[in-house]
Amino acid sequence: MNTSTSHSSKAGRRRGRSESQIPPIRQTSYRSLTNPFVPQTVFSDDQVQAIHATALRILQELGIKVLLPQALAVYKAAGAIVDPDTQMVRIGAELVTAALATAPRAIPCMAGDRSRDVRFELGRLNFLAGCGSPNVSDLDQGRRAGTLADFENAIRIIQGFDVLHLQGPYIEPQDIDPRFRHYAMTRAQLTLSDKLPNVYARGTQQVEDSFEMIRLARGLSESEFLATPCCWGVINTNSPRQLDIPMAQGIIDFARHGQPTVITPFCLAGAMAPVTVAGALALQHAEALAGITLAQLTRQGAPVLYGSFASNVDLRSGSPTFGTPEHIKATLGSGQLARLIGLPWRSGAGCAAASPDVQAAHETQFGLWASVLAGSSLCIHAAGWVEGGLTFSFEKLITDLEALQTLAELCQTSPGDTDAIGYDAIADVAPGGHFFSTQHTMERYRTAFYEPLVADLSNFGNWTESGALRTIDRARSVWKRRLDEFTAPESARAQAESLDAFIARRTAEGGAAPVS
Amino acid sequence: MNTSTSHSSKAGRRRGRSESQIPPIRQTSYRSLTNPFVPQTVFSDDQVQAIHATALRILQELGIKVLLPQALAVYKAAGAIVDPDTQMVRIGAELVTAALATAPRAIPCMAGDRSRDVRFELGRLNFLAGCGSPNVSDLDQGRRAGTLADFENAIRIIQGFDVLHLQGPYIEPQDIDPRFRHYAMTRAQLTLSDKLPNVYARGTQQVEDSFEMIRLARGLSESEFLATPCCWGVINTNSPRQLDIPMAQGIIDFARHGQPTVITPFCLAGAMAPVTVAGALALQHAEALAGITLAQLTRQGAPVLYGSFASNVDLRSGSPTFGTPEHIKATLGSGQLARLIGLPWRSGAGCAAASPDVQAAHETQFGLWASVLAGSSLCIHAAGWVEGGLTFSFEKLITDLEALQTLAELCQTSPGDTDAIGYDAIADVAPGGHFFSTQHTMERYRTAFYEPLVADLSNFGNWTESGALRTIDRARSVWKRRLDEFTAPESARAQAESLDAFIARRTAEGGAAPVS
Repeated sequence: MNTSTSHSSKAGRRRGRSESQIPPIRQTSYRSLTNPFVPQTVFSDDQVQAIHATALRILQELGIKVLLPQALAVYKAAGAIVDPDTQMVRIGAELVTAALATAPRAIPCMAGDRSRDVRFELGRLNFLAGCGSPNVSDLDQGRRAGTLADFENAIRIIQGFDVLHLQGPYIEPQDIDPRFRHYAMTRAQLTLSDKLPNVYARGTQQVEDSFEMIRLARGLSESEFLATPCCWGVINTNSPRQLDIPMAQGIIDFARHGQPTVITPFCLAGAMAPVTVAGALALQHAEALAGITLAQLTRQGAPVLYGSFASNVDLRSGSPTFGTPEHIKATLGSGQLARLIGLPWRSGAGCAAASPDVQAAHETQFGLWASVLAGSSLCIHAAGWVEGGLTFSFEKLITDLEALQTLAELCQTSPGDTDAIGYDAIADVAPGGHFFSTQHTMERYRTAFYEPLVADLSNFGNWTESGALRTIDRARSVWKRRLDEFTAPESARAQAESLDAFIARRTAEGGAAPVS
Repeated sequence: MNTSTSHSSKAGRRRGRSESQIPPIRQTSYRSLTNPFVPQTVFSDDQVQAIHATALRILQELGIKVLLPQALAVYKAAGAIVDPDTQMVRIGAELVTAALATAPRAIPCMAGDRSRDVRFELGRLNFLAGCGSPNVSDLDQGRRAGTLADFENAIRIIQGFDVLHLQGPYIEPQDIDPRFRHYAMTRAQLTLSDKLPNVYARGTQQVEDSFEMIRLARGLSESEFLATPCCWGVINTNSPRQLDIPMAQGIIDFARHGQPTVITPFCLAGAMAPVTVAGALALQHAEALAGITLAQLTRQGAPVLYGSFASNVDLRSGSPTFGTPEHIKATLGSGQLARLIGLPWRSGAGCAAASPDVQAAHETQFGLWASVLAGSSLCIHAAGWVEGGLTFSFEKLITDLEALQTLAELCQTSPGDTDAIGYDAIADVAPGGHFFSTQHTMERYRTAFYEPLVADLSNFGNWTESGALRTIDRARSVWKRRLDEFTAPESARAQAESLDAFIARRTAEGGAAPVS
């Protein structure tokens, strides 16, 4: 968090040199991260070109099945070859190329508080906690179906961590009727948080209801809303080569309203995609390009992110895997494809482990590194997921946050000037001595090091004496304390009244059933 | 492991196309890893030059305290300014530069089996399990003082994992008299393993005893031994700016015998080194250069690795930290310094956590990524450490091995040719279908994916029904099974007789007390 410290540091300075033992406390700046790493590759440039060319050939020669008549009409009007009987759309390379030329390279998004604005662009790094979990778990209550209260608690905790840059649909509030669920989810995001909210693409009526709530909360006119990305949504294709009704509708609805979608095939190598990483990416690329093209045909310049969630299937269980070598390679390759087409893009972390323990930590951290090294613009499922997303774990949210904050620290430069190199400090300390009380240390000790969120660095004896707490025990204390201390931002709380009036009216009208 | 499979795959081919459902099983090749990643940086080139220049200035103007008279004489004979009263040695930049010109860029080392030879060189990647732990722990017996039996078990388990490239002094066998401990440790490595053995630098007599055992086991004449690196040792300076008697003696003894040392200051920012990463590295660099210079003055061309184990101190406990942002940055910066001087170098992973759980996993994986991205030639403490090395955990050895094998998989290329991209396979599967039984999948499914060592990818229901085992529970099963199934390599077992004769004679002569 961005804690203001001018007070104590000024006081220290005012009292002069003898009081230099009161240095400023540490400030962090995780709200806007520039990726410091050179993107890493897994394929040669020629191979990336070949994957791109194959994707174009897939779209042109094999086509993609699109279940929404409105979308078929959009493709057909632009010159794609549409078979109304099979619902197959064959899209020429020139249509895709034209779409890539109009899709914006940078998507600046307005949050509730402008200091939390998000920018999707190659070279920038945004993290989002795990999304879409039907279940939730914590040490107190165990694993259970998700509720609105759980979703709201996730929003509250996440609001307090700058390294999670936007809000998402973490937990499915199964206690709320699907006709009214989008009101509750949008309300929770808008009244508890000032971060960029998410909208599910579950049919036009739900999307437009949610957009209206965001427009109200942000105080935007309809034309201002059209010109201002201020929420975001995910589109998943039904791999292989299929785009269903709510997803195609979502692309069109978000594009029409100038709101960004993340067009994400879920290409599991060996299941819904070829068993090879290169093959899974060729399919992913074709499907993403089909979606990007639909968005651009709907509205030129519509904000879209290229999406990847390619991994491999576990051939024993049929489940998706995360943090495996194949997942990492697919992520690195996706970054190469995204850079080839020049678009901001999303990757995924997450884990397959059934409990938030060691396996889960390794899987998630591997996925995070893959995203960072691949140059992802938005890493989704970066914290809290277990069971491949079937459950959102509050303890894992906290332990993953430690990893995210560590990565965010790497985005900050490390001083390398003469003072930092510190010849004089080294000269001050005799051989075999220590630097604890040198002036060089005293001036910096409160700001030099990252302060752990949940890691316990005490020795075995002290750790044992204080109860031999597991990391997840400590994580429980952290999220509970954060919840206890939570206060919604004033600007967010102020939205409740007008939103509730809107929700009451729409509820009386029967709400909006999800489209499937 | 490198499992031969020609049998089954040939059989499959002989039976023709219809039997192509019997593809070869997966082979891995972790024995020789080339780092696939572009080295990442934390300082600008100018800053790295400035750190190097500062290190030279430290050696020239401030000097380093050297407690061994023989080393003082070596430095003095070469022109360094030695004060016999203070034991301070001031080393001119020209001496250091000359030493860097004669230190070899590549160090090929002969293992017991030549397929396990290790090569230390920039661009290559070697992993070593955690070393130097006084204690050991496992789920059955808990935490306790290390014994020879524990050390031997560690060697046995590690022998079976190709991704751990050499052997090290994992656990201190406290049940063996220090006068005879080096015989037991060297014997264990030579009779249970065909990997490169480690020798502790605890005085000339111990070192020469150990060298003699290795010479016997490898069947080398004295002159052949001098020309053939076939073991390795670590030298730690006493930061700041001090080189003690056994360490200085070790540099000289290993150099005289042509055996490689890893010259590793342990520069904890804020404790034994400046609080800044740049300052800690300036001190580290000065101390490492002093050691490298002593090795080259002893014998031109002596094999030496540049060593880094810089991290920060936890200001609450005074303990070293691992996997922190500062540790990662220090490792990346060390890679920059190693590339500047062109030498192979070692980094460190490890963890501070008191138990092998989530915190430990995150810390270790961060350290591993730091090493890989920094271009380390040898990553030490890569598996098994907890408590900053005070304890070697058998369960953590296994869970860390999963991370190491994942990284090793990333060193293998991912096919990106036309067949891998698989247009035809994609054409074979209808929209919404699956790839499970396509020919493209059947030909590859047994080889396409990494096979987990300890990860459980089953769903929550199956995981719960099978006992809801923690990752460390499964890790216990893995290491116990590996121990049960262990057979020492024939070539290693064959050494026991001649080694035992040597040990019996030296034991009768009273052994060799460690020098301190």
